[in-house]
Amino acid sequence: MNTDGPSAGGGISPGAGVPWLAGEGQSADVVLSSRVRLARNIAGVRFVGKADRRERMHVLEAVRARSTLLKNVGQLVWINLHESTVSDRTILVERHLISKQHSKSRGVNAEDPRAVLFSLPDERLSIMVNEEDHLRMQSVMSGLCLDACWRTLDAVDDAIGAALPFAFSPRFGYLTACPTNVGTGLRMSAMLHLPALRLTGELEKVKRAANDIALAVRGFYGEGSEAIGDLYQISNQTTLGKTEQEILAELHLEILPRVVEYERSARRELLSKRLSTIEDQVFRAYGTLLHARLLGTEESMTLLSMVRLGVVAGLITGHTQAKINRLLLLVQPGHLQLMWGKELDQEQRKVARAEIVRQELK
Amino acid sequence: MNTDGPSAGGGISPGAGVPWLAGEGQSADVVLSSRVRLARNIAGVRFVGKADRRERMHVLEAVRARSTLLKNVGQLVWINLHESTVSDRTILVERHLISKQHSKSRGVNAEDPRAVLFSLPDERLSIMVNEEDHLRMQSVMSGLCLDACWRTLDAVDDAIGAALPFAFSPRFGYLTACPTNVGTGLRMSAMLHLPALRLTGELEKVKRAANDIALAVRGFYGEGSEAIGDLYQISNQTTLGKTEQEILAELHLEILPRVVEYERSARRELLSKRLSTIEDQVFRAYGTLLHARLLGTEESMTLLSMVRLGVVAGLITGHTQAKINRLLLLVQPGHLQLMWGKELDQEQRKVARAEIVRQELK
Repeated sequence: MNTDGPSAGGGISPGAGVPWLAGEGQSADVVLSSRVRLARNIAGVRFVGKADRRERMHVLEAVRARSTLLKNVGQLVWINLHESTVSDRTILVERHLISKQHSKSRGVNAEDPRAVLFSLPDERLSIMVNEEDHLRMQSVMSGLCLDACWRTLDAVDDAIGAALPFAFSPRFGYLTACPTNVGTGLRMSAMLHLPALRLTGELEKVKRAANDIALAVRGFYGEGSEAIGDLYQISNQTTLGKTEQEILAELHLEILPRVVEYERSARRELLSKRLSTIEDQVFRAYGTLLHARLLGTEESMTLLSMVRLGVVAGLITGHTQAKINRLLLLVQPGHLQLMWGKELDQEQRKVARAEIVRQELK
Repeated sequence: MNTDGPSAGGGISPGAGVPWLAGEGQSADVVLSSRVRLARNIAGVRFVGKADRRERMHVLEAVRARSTLLKNVGQLVWINLHESTVSDRTILVERHLISKQHSKSRGVNAEDPRAVLFSLPDERLSIMVNEEDHLRMQSVMSGLCLDACWRTLDAVDDAIGAALPFAFSPRFGYLTACPTNVGTGLRMSAMLHLPALRLTGELEKVKRAANDIALAVRGFYGEGSEAIGDLYQISNQTTLGKTEQEILAELHLEILPRVVEYERSARRELLSKRLSTIEDQVFRAYGTLLHARLLGTEESMTLLSMVRLGVVAGLITGHTQAKINRLLLLVQPGHLQLMWGKELDQEQRKVARAEIVRQELK
């Protein structure tokens, strides 16, 4: 295990993108990535919100010691976030290895002992330690593959749980800091690219339908974040009263395939009935990305969304989905600065972002 | 003299642009063209507003007969507008050979006898017959050259006036339909490209200063037209109480050079203090023109304005001012359809315009 602390995200190679944005796997035209996470707490230790520094340190040590039990997940990296730099934490957030809350870049509790453990090279596994719960374990992969994510995470859960008893109630199941996670502690989600549903105005219908069956529709960075670049996370909200297999089957086999088909049908409709308008929007976005000298993060993502639609629809040739997905990550401030090799202020980032995008798309 | 009537604008070659948009001559970085016009009426014939059909026909015949007296202006073309097609008249308006009012494409008086006489190949001379006055003679050339325009038009005025006495009062000078033209009947104007003064917010100052000294600031198509593409016509309003030479000297030697210098200084300021913003705007406009699949006239002109600034400032290489000026004309509906070879509806024009612009800028 690589135990270096704050060294550029602990071996992360920013230029290469992240495997979960590889544009591969089932339904990758619509589904960027699938994600499964489990919330767990160590039995007999106060929850993070109540824990003092000593208890937090104890949790870190306990998890870190058990990480040697994990097999077949690649090389593991441990990073103590309370000892890491802001820019390293930004990188980790942008790669979705930790949450914004766990990063606490500007919070009063930036010194609270907390860590992240993740696997290289493919980053399919990560465990946030001392986030809202003692352990927030997640597995993320490219395409629609909640089943594979679940298998990975289930094995991790078994391996750690066997050595480190989790807080569990026979009546409620796994106990968690927030009641919405009690039971399975499970959340499954997929990151979807839904530009056509936005353009045809049908996205609101999808959102309402999702809410009706207790699914949440959120933005690129999860809870509380705005949808930018037409990227949406759809996830289950119910963790109690259903088995993991039921939740998996419902999302992976029923609901997500239906949303995928809905988006595809909206794309077909746009391309047959509003081709010139769509071509115009796609190529204007492409032209702006190819020529702009100043680009903000959000505008870049909005433009990349249209270019991604153009690439998937075959309107733009010579670029892969993987490249456009990767650019969605590279335009984020942390990755941008890592690529550029130094800290940049906001104006400098706009220049650097435009330059990197031009180079990549040329 | 070519006396063909309504044959594609009477020998006009749309693809070649117009000589007054050649991007040549003095101060061509700011001044697209200079224009001098004289309003004249034939003595003893009722003004156009009061004339019946017979009198109007008489005016046409009288002017046409005298046109043989004109020397050194090139080949002359006569077009009876009341017998011409709407698309031919549109072409003539777009080339500024006739006014929108003279075109009367949709007016109740579309059958009123009226004509235009103009010179090929350089279109430096045109005479509208039976517009607001019996004769509206104008000379237009590229760059800041009101002196040359004036010499051309003065000779034409002398040649025709010697054979066809003009309505003249010893007290007021030349008599015209509108009192604002009485006296010299002279209007001198320059078409200026003022993007930097708009961007620095100083354009309003120029407009106020111009009004204070009785100059008018108008849009691309003259009176009543909006400024699109940062193109402004600055012209004298006083025709009475000053000699032609005084008006010429004031505009040509004093006022216009001052506006030119003001715009140039605004451009220098933008390029030194706001370079990245300007580069960004210039290249975004360029990128949109290079990639859009649908373009409206006005948007095209707005984008071409920024590209013209970029070409003049040396930010964009590989294109000449002349090419961008020419595109300002080609994006107009009439020229677009002439280039395309057929009538197009508004949506088709957007597609054709975007395609022609892409081809020209590639």
